Formats: sequence, structure tokens, C-alpha cells
Amino acid sequence: MGKTTRRNAIVGQSGGPTAVINQSLVGVIEAASEFDQIDRLFGARYGVRGIIEENFIELNGLDAGLLKRIADTPCSALGSTRDKPDEEYCRKIFNAFAKNDVRYFFYIGGNDSADTARIVSEMADEAGYELRVFHIPKTIDNDLRVTDHCPGYGSAARFVAHAVMGDGLDNASLPGIKIDVIMGRHAGWLTAASMLARHDETDAPHLIYVPEAPISEGQFVDDIAEVYGRLGRCLVVVSEGIVDENGKGWNEQLLRMTHGAEVERDGHGNIQLSGSGMLGDCIANFARAEVSARFSEKKLRVRADTFGYLQRSFPDSVSPVDRTEAHLAGRKAVEYAAAGQPSGSVAFRRTGNGNDYGIECFRAKLQDVARNIKPLPPEYINEAGNGIAEQFRTYVAPLVGELPIIGKL
Amino acid sequence: MGKTTRRNAIVGQSGGPTAVINQSLVGVIEAASEFDQIDRLFGARYGVRGIIEENFIELNGLDAGLLKRIADTPCSALGSTRDKPDEEYCRKIFNAFAKNDVRYFFYIGGNDSADTARIVSEMADEAGYELRVFHIPKTIDNDLRVTDHCPGYGSAARFVAHAVMGDGLDNASLPGIKIDVIMGRHAGWLTAASMLARHDETDAPHLIYVPEAPISEGQFVDDIAEVYGRLGRCLVVVSEGIVDENGKGWNEQLLRMTHGAEVERDGHGNIQLSGSGMLGDCIANFARAEVSARFSEKKLRVRADTFGYLQRSFPDSVSPVDRTEAHLAGRKAVEYAAAGQPSGSVAFRRTGNGNDYGIECFRAKLQDVARNIKPLPPEYINEAGNGIAEQFRTYVAPLVGELPIIGKL
Repeated sequence: MGKTTRRNAIVGQSGGPTAVINQSLVGVIEAASEFDQIDRLFGARYGVRGIIEENFIELNGLDAGLLKRIADTPCSALGSTRDKPDEEYCRKIFNAFAKNDVRYFFYIGGNDSADTARIVSEMADEAGYELRVFHIPKTIDNDLRVTDHCPGYGSAARFVAHAVMGDGLDNASLPGIKIDVIMGRHAGWLTAASMLARHDETDAPHLIYVPEAPISEGQFVDDIAEVYGRLGRCLVVVSEGIVDENGKGWNEQLLRMTHGAEVERDGHGNIQLSGSGMLGDCIANFARAEVSARFSEKKLRVRADTFGYLQRSFPDSVSPVDRTEAHLAGRKAVEYAAAGQPSGSVAFRRTGNGNDYGIECFRAKLQDVARNIKPLPPEYINEAGNGIAEQFRTYVAPLVGELPIIGKL
Repeated sequence: MGKTTRRNAIVGQSGGPTAVINQSLVGVIEAASEFDQIDRLFGARYGVRGIIEENFIELNGLDAGLLKRIADTPCSALGSTRDKPDEEYCRKIFNAFAKNDVRYFFYIGGNDSADTARIVSEMADEAGYELRVFHIPKTIDNDLRVTDHCPGYGSAARFVAHAVMGDGLDNASLPGIKIDVIMGRHAGWLTAASMLARHDETDAPHLIYVPEAPISEGQFVDDIAEVYGRLGRCLVVVSEGIVDENGKGWNEQLLRMTHGAEVERDGHGNIQLSGSGMLGDCIANFARAEVSARFSEKKLRVRADTFGYLQRSFPDSVSPVDRTEAHLAGRKAVEYAAAGQPSGSVAFRRTGNGNDYGIECFRAKLQDVARNIKPLPPEYINEAGNGIAEQFRTYVAPLVGELPIIGKL
């Protein structure tokens, strides 16, 4: 048997952190040390930015205890970036690879990261430079195509389910109308996970709105008034990407009314939703005015909480399955690389549910994962468009792990 | 030995819920079943309101499994109230007691509840009606006098410490300025607990502001600019009760600037802070404008999260010590009652710290606990007034339980 050619590798983390993104990183680090094909493993600080700036940490020979601690620590140990590389940026990445004899690139991130991986991989092909690029899925939004679900989602879903359960009990203790705003600008997967908090008709959440089910302001008020009239309280879970019957984001209308020009927008002109309580406050003010008018209560108790960054970083409510699978996804990427497989994205196929829950991994094509997202399918949304169908529980429950059973008098 | 006279008892829950308030309730229920002195035990729905409306649940003979589940469920299983009884209201309470031959009243709540207990107890004395009233401490604010600490605080502090740890890692992944707003209008105990997230100079939180340490807007900006200049990021933990150098609430000034008349106020004219992200958003906008001006960064990344009701209701991050002590506080109230002790409030005395941590219970006088609060003492605040002194760790750590050790590259 001939001596294996040893080549250098780079790993990076991109986009919003998750509670388990370091599991994937450590999966890569551990597996890389086991395969002869990989010589030096560089960690790029702050994602692709660290590559073009050649800001690397050498990841070989790290202590096993330290690696274990890093794996169990939420958020990106290497640092992350919001940079979305264009062709020119990707060329700089590719040049840095060539300069450092990097032949394997492992990139942990969402669909934008998969697209970066795709472009860099294509550039290498065109240049005749041998490079294997592996995308390792990561997103609390769970909106990557091909894979059954995404590492990072289960833990965020666990946080949301517990938070809505607790907040629903709070709302039952001191009744009123409560709005909880959940992350997910384009897809309702994370918002939908709040349904796990509910075990009977009176449990929160009473209403769930996802971007995939447009809702008019009038219907929204009707729905809340119906629940409030029946139970004397109402907990509403709203995705930050909630849209009206014309597909227009609620945030645009509500925020323009109350905040005018001072709203922060990102490079694409989208309103900055995360890291702000504005949308929740606007919805609460709107609901207070409109629902009060239907009841003779002058001071309707309406509150809003925006779960914010806690959803993706809270260290004390991590899903055991998510932890294991995120680690596995990192390992698999290295295994595919070492086995000489073509560039691709690690994906999960579900092999069973309930007590038989399990997954197997496979390699998806980068172009099938890049750019476009996977919305919550219609069969998971109830007919009224204001709740989540019971069958979603089968999908999401194993990813989240056990939830407490509510005790009631 | 003569036959013990068996009398009826009422238990109620009041004010903002906590993650362990039902532990105290179940402590009362269990102990009441063990002592001959107590015949029927009524649970008042929605606190004192349930007493004057005679809206009771009979709590005798409940299944042990159900009681265990209720104890482990956050928030008030009986329902809570924000009613602050005046003398007339207390008379109605007293009349309901007399009508139902209630001779023991157990009230789980904060300093307002202790005051209600005091007034009702005094009315009974004046009327020559034999009544023992026991206040069982409960508040995430930890601001009750006499007792070393309050049931409910440890779990809320655990949530805050984990949340700030996770959010600090998030802030290190995608650097910028982050503001986290913590509950506690008058006392900084809960905000101070965020210091547990910090293990070295670079860890979050970098700045902590409590109501006990007034801070001018100028100093606030200076502090953030100093940290941001040094680390390229800054996580700031702010109590919702933050005040300026004249003792005036920041919320008053900032919110008036941006929201004018539309701010919701409570019965005392105070701005409604909980269940809204306004204060955090205002501070973030202010910090963005002021700190940007000091650096040549046009688009400084500034975000705010308001932890909201999750701090008091999250089911997946409960402090084991808090759970045990809340249960004990409920039991002790019944023991004091059964032993014929005078009306009072259950209080904790700390007997040791670290590995020797322990408490013993004693009965405090209602008038010593009622109404006034206990602020965070000056020795727990750093000299600059922008952080928490290291010695606070000794006080708070045992109440919160173990925190993860951050793994860093």
C-alpha cells in the first residue's frame, strides 16, 4: 500500500451561532486527526473573512478535555461572519487555499455558506486545482433543503418549546394577552416547535403564526378575540417573518406606522428584526387597541416578549439528539473527504420515529442545498392558518427531547 | 392527651410567578396533611381575589404523583393576582375567613403579600378571632428584608447567568455591542447574578448596571466605548430599573424621547417595563448613536434583548437548591402554624458557603418583611459602579447551582 498524500484542511463557521455549532467543529477536528489524508487543520477565525485575511488557528493536537469543553460550549468558537462572498471574494478564498496548500475545506453554516462552498468548489474545478469542499449544515431555522433537519434546530426548538410552555403557565397565572416573537424571517420551523408546549385545549400556545400562512390583521384580531373570549387569556406565538394576505411583511406596515424612518435596515433593505423588541411591541400595541375595542375592558393586559438571541445560544437547554447529530455531521464531512468523495453537503435521512427514531447520513450536492430554502410544508399548518397540525409533533419531538409534563390543579 | 382541635386553612399565591412557587404550594399541601391541627385546606384561585370571591379548590387528599408534577411545574398553579388589598379589601378577606372557619392563612408572595398578611393578622387580633397568618417568601427580585435570600431568586438567577453566558458567546462570535435588559425595577439582585457568566477579563458581561448604582448617560457611553475599543465588542447587562445621577429612571427620559405619550403606565404612574422591549431598544438606539460617533464605524452593530417573562417561568433551567428551599419554605410555614407560633414570615439564615452551603429557617415578624425592600448592598457593587464585586459570587453561586465551563480556542 502506498503512502497516503497528506494535505492541509481548513474549517470555518458562518452565520448566526447555534447551541451546538461547536459540536460540528469538534467533530471535524477529531475526525481530521484520525485520517491520514489530512495533515494540518487550520481554523479560520470569523468564517470566510479569516480565510482571506489568513487569520488561522492551528487545530492539530489539541487536548481532548479542551475539545470536549469546546464542543459543549454554545456559539462559534472560531468566530463567525455575516459576509456573503461574491465571485471576487470567493477568488480571494481560493487564492488563500492555493497559497497554504489547502485541499479540503469544511464550512459549517446555512444555505449561504453552502453557496459559498459551491462557488469555491467550482472555481477550483475550473482552475484544475484539487479541492474537496464540504458544507456542514447548521441553522436554527431548519430551512435547508434535502436534509430531513438541520443541526442547531433541535436545541433552538427545545428552548422555544420550554419558553412557550413556561410563558403559557405565566399567562395562566396572571391572565391576559401575550405575544411571543420567534426567530425565522422566511420559514416557520422554529415558531412551529412551540406547539410542543401544548397538551390540551387550554394549554398555550393558543395561536401560532408562521410566514408560510399569510394572515390579515383583521383575522389576527378575530382569532385572538375568540380565544380571549373563551379562556380569558391568549398566548400567541408569532414568527418574526409573519406576512399579511398580500405576502407583505407585518413588520413593514406596523413598524412604519410607529417608528418611521428610524428603523434599521440591513444591506438588502430588510428591517433589522433580531436584537430588537420592536415587532413584538408593535403587535402588542395593535392587539391591545383592537381587542380592547371588542370587549368592555378598558385596560386589557397585553404583553410581548421577543425571545431574541437566547434561542440560539442558551447553554442550559440543549437537545441531546441535536448535540449528537451536530457532532456526527462534522465527522461525516471529514469521512466523505477522506474517502475521496466529491464536494457536497452532509445531509440526514430519517430512518424511524418515536422510540425508533434514527438518522443516516448521506452526501447531498452543494447546488441542491445552496441559496434557496425549504419552507414549512402546508401539511404541518392547520386549516385556519393559525396553528400547527398535530402530525408535526411526530416530526419535531425526537429532535427536541423530552419536555416536562405540566401538573395542574 | 386531648384531641387536637382541627381548623381550616387557606393557601394562596400572589404577584409575579417564579419557576418554583409551586414547590412552596406543594410544601404547604403535604405538611398540612401531616398535622392534625389542620382539617380542610382550601386553595384560593388568583390570590386574595379568590378569597373574597370564595373561589376555592379543596387541596386535601390529592394524589402524590400529581403533587410532584405540580411542584415541578413553574408558575402559580392556583393562579395569581396583582391586587394590592387596602384595609377594606383586607376586611373582606377576614370576613371570608370567619365565614369558612379558616384559622390558618398561608400566603406565598413578595413584600406586598407580607403586608397583606400583616394587615389581616392585625384585624384578626383586634377582633379577637384566632388566626395565624404565615407569609411564604417568593420573588425573583430577591429583595425581601430579613431573609438571606428568597425562593424563586435562585432559578431566575440561574436563567440570567446562563442567558448572559450564551449571549456573551454569541457576541464573541459576531462582535458588536449588545444590551441585555433584566427584570428588577428597584433592586439589582437579579441583574447582578449575570456576573456568574464571567470567568476572565474578556468574558461577558463586560458592564453591569443596577438601580443601586446611578449612572449618567455620558458615563454609560464612556464605559461602553472603553470596552469596545479594547475588545472590539461589549456586552452590557442593564437592570430595567437603571437610574441616572439624579436618581431619575432612564426609562422615563429615553422613552419620553422616542415614544412620547403612548407609553403604558401602571396604577402608580410607573412606566410598564415588563412584557415590552422598549427600554432595551431605546438604550440600543442611544448607544448606537453615541458610540458610533466616537469610532469611525458608520454601521456599529448594536442589539438589545429583553429577557422578559422567561426569567421567571422557564422550566428547563431550575436551580436544584432553589427547588428544595422553596419546598422547605412551604413546609416550615405549616410547621410554625401547627406548633402554635405567632403569625410571621418564613426566613432563611445561611449557615455556610461553598461546599458547606446550608440554611436554617426561622420565623421573621411580618412587619419586618412587609412593604420596604432590601436593595443590593454597596459592597457587592464595584467602585466604578459599572460592575459587580467578586465577593458577590460567594453569595449567589450556591443559590444558582453549577454553570458550564466555557471552552475556548
